[in-house]
Amino acid sequence: MSQHPLRTQIEDIVKLSDAEFDFVLGHFQENNFKKHQIVLHQGDYAHFDFFVIKGLMRVSRVDPDGKEHILQFGMENWWITDAEAFHHQTKSTLTVDCLEPTKTLSLTLENKEKLSKELPKMQTFFFKKTTNGFIALQKRILCFLSSNANDRYHNLLSLYPGLMQRVPKAMIASYLGVTRETLSRLTKVES
Amino acid sequence: MSQHPLRTQIEDIVKLSDAEFDFVLGHFQENNFKKHQIVLHQGDYAHFDFFVIKGLMRVSRVDPDGKEHILQFGMENWWITDAEAFHHQTKSTLTVDCLEPTKTLSLTLENKEKLSKELPKMQTFFFKKTTNGFIALQKRILCFLSSNANDRYHNLLSLYPGLMQRVPKAMIASYLGVTRETLSRLTKVES
Repeated sequence: MSQHPLRTQIEDIVKLSDAEFDFVLGHFQENNFKKHQIVLHQGDYAHFDFFVIKGLMRVSRVDPDGKEHILQFGMENWWITDAEAFHHQTKSTLTVDCLEPTKTLSLTLENKEKLSKELPKMQTFFFKKTTNGFIALQKRILCFLSSNANDRYHNLLSLYPGLMQRVPKAMIASYLGVTRETLSRLTKVES
Repeated sequence: MSQHPLRTQIEDIVKLSDAEFDFVLGHFQENNFKKHQIVLHQGDYAHFDFFVIKGLMRVSRVDPDGKEHILQFGMENWWITDAEAFHHQTKSTLTVDCLEPTKTLSLTLENKEKLSKELPKMQTFFFKKTTNGFIALQKRILCFLSSNANDRYHNLLSLYPGLMQRVPKAMIASYLGVTRETLSRLTKVES
């Protein structure tokens, strides 16, 4: 039997016994969402952080003028939520929805804090994941500062292998902050 | 006697006894840097994370074409380093220098991990600080995606109160990723 993907991810950072992993897993809830289902509406409280088992989600915001911006995609083994609303228990300014039928494990902030306290290895895991997320965002900002759409595009390809085949080009453009014409130019250079 | 600024920041998140704070402080080294001093050169290993007691530092990168991008400023009570090079113990792709005479406390990764292990409250502190940093970077990315330089400018004003009076306008433009002309337009609207 293959190992649970959550266990694989945790054990990349800290080792767990079978009993410890069972204890961890007991703090999550399993969810099955339909394609297009909205799992967090802008303006609602963000009760969960989602670990994607199978499928594809996204976090986005719609501007007052109706333009949609994609902050993050979440495919297999990604964590996804409105981080600010979840950690500060405030109303969400972002929307989380499913681009494919999606299976997740969800964790409440209460259970995240309980796990961190009762199994300090889990705090180490969450801390390292967040640090790596912070580093990845700094890289994305540097790509914006250098106005280098080509760097941003390659950054996306390495972050999300296979994503280009799973979502419409308009969403890729929205994540990169470029027009569809610019994206066509970038993808043409590749092929 | 006023409280140590590091203690104030830690105690915003977790409470420490006098003995615990002395234990924490014993893991830091005090540094005094001159204006213009480079404390981390691109290509070197990043041995320290710096907590700014007094002064002003910045993290920047120079593009192959010579254009400078400012990723972060660090004024009083900020933490500053090349996060990737520090946490992964790899060679730095960024430069950290001082824009004013600067006094800092520096922490090695070894001591950060030791503190987190021996005083789990400190792991909680580092984890919350990193989570808040992650959230702040997400906001900065959303400002880039909406191409709203005005939002980015106001974001900077609230993140770094008083910074406008401490650095040349060219550096503010470099942080925002805008031309000096655009910045002039933004600051005029304010006055």
